[in-house]
Amino acid sequence: MKRRAVPIGAALHSICSGTRFLSLSTSGAFSHKTIKSPALSSVDIVDSWDSTSKLPVQPCTQKLSKNQTAKIIDGSAIAEGIRSRIASEVRRMKESIGRVPSLAAILVGQRRDSLTYVRNKTIASEEVGIKFKLTSLREDCTESEVCNALCRYSEDPSVHGILLQLPLPQHLDEAKILSFISLEKDVDGFHPLNIGHLAMQGMEPLFIPCTPKGCIELLLQSGVEIMGKNAVVIGRSNIVGLPMSLLLQRHHATVTVLDALTKNPEKIAREADILVTAAGVPDLVRGSWLKPGAVVLDVGTNPIEDCTSEHGYHLVGDVCFEEAVRVASAITPVPGGVGPMTVAMLLCNTLEAAKRALNFTTTC
Amino acid sequence: MKRRAVPIGAALHSICSGTRFLSLSTSGAFSHKTIKSPALSSVDIVDSWDSTSKLPVQPCTQKLSKNQTAKIIDGSAIAEGIRSRIASEVRRMKESIGRVPSLAAILVGQRRDSLTYVRNKTIASEEVGIKFKLTSLREDCTESEVCNALCRYSEDPSVHGILLQLPLPQHLDEAKILSFISLEKDVDGFHPLNIGHLAMQGMEPLFIPCTPKGCIELLLQSGVEIMGKNAVVIGRSNIVGLPMSLLLQRHHATVTVLDALTKNPEKIAREADILVTAAGVPDLVRGSWLKPGAVVLDVGTNPIEDCTSEHGYHLVGDVCFEEAVRVASAITPVPGGVGPMTVAMLLCNTLEAAKRALNFTTTC
Repeated sequence: MKRRAVPIGAALHSICSGTRFLSLSTSGAFSHKTIKSPALSSVDIVDSWDSTSKLPVQPCTQKLSKNQTAKIIDGSAIAEGIRSRIASEVRRMKESIGRVPSLAAILVGQRRDSLTYVRNKTIASEEVGIKFKLTSLREDCTESEVCNALCRYSEDPSVHGILLQLPLPQHLDEAKILSFISLEKDVDGFHPLNIGHLAMQGMEPLFIPCTPKGCIELLLQSGVEIMGKNAVVIGRSNIVGLPMSLLLQRHHATVTVLDALTKNPEKIAREADILVTAAGVPDLVRGSWLKPGAVVLDVGTNPIEDCTSEHGYHLVGDVCFEEAVRVASAITPVPGGVGPMTVAMLLCNTLEAAKRALNFTTTC
Repeated sequence: MKRRAVPIGAALHSICSGTRFLSLSTSGAFSHKTIKSPALSSVDIVDSWDSTSKLPVQPCTQKLSKNQTAKIIDGSAIAEGIRSRIASEVRRMKESIGRVPSLAAILVGQRRDSLTYVRNKTIASEEVGIKFKLTSLREDCTESEVCNALCRYSEDPSVHGILLQLPLPQHLDEAKILSFISLEKDVDGFHPLNIGHLAMQGMEPLFIPCTPKGCIELLLQSGVEIMGKNAVVIGRSNIVGLPMSLLLQRHHATVTVLDALTKNPEKIAREADILVTAAGVPDLVRGSWLKPGAVVLDVGTNPIEDCTSEHGYHLVGDVCFEEAVRVASAITPVPGGVGPMTVAMLLCNTLEAAKRALNFTTTC
């Protein structure tokens, strides 16, 4: 077994968007333009953690130590409890009004990881009684084909939630396409208006993105106080890092967001009471990155070649679990931590969408 | 002269929204609800810095020292240069197509500070040739009266930019009302969709909120590198702190946002290469809060009673300037720092809005 990341799946939580690097002027002279600020898209650069300076020099290979202290946050068990509650709500809905929530997914191409995630969502939906529909489009489909599929589902009253499986192939404009999802059905919560509502105090997003929502749920159900705590989020993708930082701020944590350009991330991470990592780099976060007693949520899902495994790989997170477990007070494992919560929150958002659409209120 | 904040103006950059305090459960037990996460609006609490524990014990009264080191960032001069460029662009537009940009403001009530800000914006607009319209509504007007005024301006093709002077009286739902401003005319950039676009990589907001845009402009024109730097933003209001943190992230700073609940803000502030403060508390940031060589942008505009002044008060920032100037490498004064830039950026956004609406492109 080699501990080396293989390409599949690496892009699930990849830090997204932006391709051009624009060197910011450091000249103090007044430019010929009215102002110097460049267009924001032009300053976006790929937030890649591949720099060797950021990767640990020593591989993290220690076995689980006897002096383990951290509580393992059992995302699978917590998610199971949530799914069970959702299933009973769905049954109640069916008995009361003869309807069940319905979730439609659009998959572009045949990425192995995307196929796996869509299959998992299908199974999870059906297990709780949510109807699942899938539209599969070819890898080389046009932008308008994807938008048309989204519009059809947006207009279809029998569909309550829509998810577009990300990432999309490079030739498609993810940002533009996401805007075609009806706000009321945006169960992934990635619509920019929804993100704006999440960011702004006094506003309420219709849906909170599933992974950050799952992380907060893990903290709350594990009895972790968020208010007034120092939280560090590693990675600032549109789908995990950004909404995670906004959500932690809404819960009154003091939040620092690290990206691949951060100098001395280890030092900053070590100030965190709550550390959420979504960088997509195995073993990025070593034991030395953690404050003793920190709570660690590992969103990374990095496939590692493993000839002993049925699929030829197994998943590891961004955190060197064996080291972290001896420093942290609580930690999520990979797999079985954040992952199951993401799917549970998707079901939860779909149920919410259906309840709103069908004007069905809970009594329990 | 007493160094005590008086009420007027204190709310200009006040940390906004949210009234209810919700105690977050720390129980690990599974609740009777599907999930524990509360509605986000319910966790919003007023972000007040009034706690005595946050205020400096010793008043900041030192006179400017001889061993001053910081460069004073002259916001007035930089803003003047920008206004001059805008004026020449407006003249060119008038000569080319016989039109000039037009900005409409809505003022609710007669707050003394709001009247001052609106008057300043009127003068600044007219000086660069931007037409300025004002609708004044009574303090006790209804939500629909404000929305109707916004809708009229939104539909009026002769108006290119709309600003709603904040804060609104307590009985009005600021968040809801802001959504009535046409996106294409939202020159303050406070519409939630605009904030969503600002937050998300790969997306481009139509307008960047004026104060944060002005701050970035000050950094760029002062030759301050942003990328990879540690930035700390004090305050997380929807109109300054939040968009400031998002904009600094888009420029690849590592950003920490402090609020009134942050434990040991001094220690965190001392890690900042770039410190932006918008807390609305005079002398909150002392010299001891700064890393030597830090760049300090002071967004605070706190009126201090001053019987020697014509108006009975003068303005101070959140930073104890006399101490900070001996530690920082560059600092904005109050007044004459960020303030003039905010107005210049409003004019800049209005020009942009008009150019888009009139399909007028620049050639310079």
